[in-house]
Amino acid sequence: MINTKLTNKNIILASGSPRRQQFLKDLQLDFTIQLKEIEEIFPKNLKGKKITEFLARLKASPFTNLKENDILITADTIVWHKNKMLGKPKSEKDAIVMLQNLSGKKHHVFSSICLKSKDKDVVFSDKTTVFFKNLSNEEITYYVNQFKPLDKAGSYGIQEWLGYIGVKKIKGSFFNVMGFPVHKFYKELLQF
Amino acid sequence: MINTKLTNKNIILASGSPRRQQFLKDLQLDFTIQLKEIEEIFPKNLKGKKITEFLARLKASPFTNLKENDILITADTIVWHKNKMLGKPKSEKDAIVMLQNLSGKKHHVFSSICLKSKDKDVVFSDKTTVFFKNLSNEEITYYVNQFKPLDKAGSYGIQEWLGYIGVKKIKGSFFNVMGFPVHKFYKELLQF
Repeated sequence: MINTKLTNKNIILASGSPRRQQFLKDLQLDFTIQLKEIEEIFPKNLKGKKITEFLARLKASPFTNLKENDILITADTIVWHKNKMLGKPKSEKDAIVMLQNLSGKKHHVFSSICLKSKDKDVVFSDKTTVFFKNLSNEEITYYVNQFKPLDKAGSYGIQEWLGYIGVKKIKGSFFNVMGFPVHKFYKELLQF
Repeated sequence: MINTKLTNKNIILASGSPRRQQFLKDLQLDFTIQLKEIEEIFPKNLKGKKITEFLARLKASPFTNLKENDILITADTIVWHKNKMLGKPKSEKDAIVMLQNLSGKKHHVFSSICLKSKDKDVVFSDKTTVFFKNLSNEEITYYVNQFKPLDKAGSYGIQEWLGYIGVKKIKGSFFNVMGFPVHKFYKELLQF
């Protein structure tokens, strides 16, 4: 479907996230993975999706030698809670504190994707609101011990146990919470 | 977590749905599967969640010999669109027509779960609203041919390709759309 319209394109994913890699596989896209180290810093005055837009572009910036048919994909996701950013936790203890803060409240998840070719680039974003039930400390500790969510913004994977038992509802795209607003990606990639 | 509170309970799932079986596995529950044939008919005047409540109870009704520690689980899911029920499609052609009707519009998904023991039962429900983008006939035909959604109410699985590219947003629980409102199940099972 999507891949027949992208013949001759050379798709490069610059993300180590196994979830993003799986989304591209599920879309039956041929792609290669190229990772470049980058320090994820951004201006302190940025808020919400301005942060993920900035970081998606920043992750694309080291790719300065794209060839004619290359399409580079970068992405960034954050949890936005009480006007503050929650990124990946630094430790299990940090993860427990983050989840205690999210318990019983709603928060937003912002993801941005950057598509970049030799001649142009585009950045687009998506926002999902997630409503957590009151999580007990027993539930939080069990989840963090069992699932070690150290690679996940906000310290949880909505597709994991905590998402099963802890998320009452969402408003927006589920896959955006997993780090990849796939419906927008599909649309933008076909138009790119 | 959940299973330590259910020691000595004998959990029986009466559902052939591989997705529901997987949810119980992911919750690390020990359970057996027992299927009993039942004709899924319901009073014509029922609407929305009254239908899934009725059918979840109906599916539990043949289990008349539950033992002391048995907990039986049955469930039903429908798509509710323009005041009409969409169940499983009868053919690929029927699936294509259903998806053409859902294209570009919102619909509701109702799931009900019945928990039943020797002495009591409880039925609870969940509702999720799903917003589809405009689907092209090419996209619909591709999906139906590739994924054969004949076992799925409304002719789609939100966790499959069509859910990836076609669903703009939802309001409610994602897992409810997959046929099992797992957050409510977890809560009710621990209280049962």
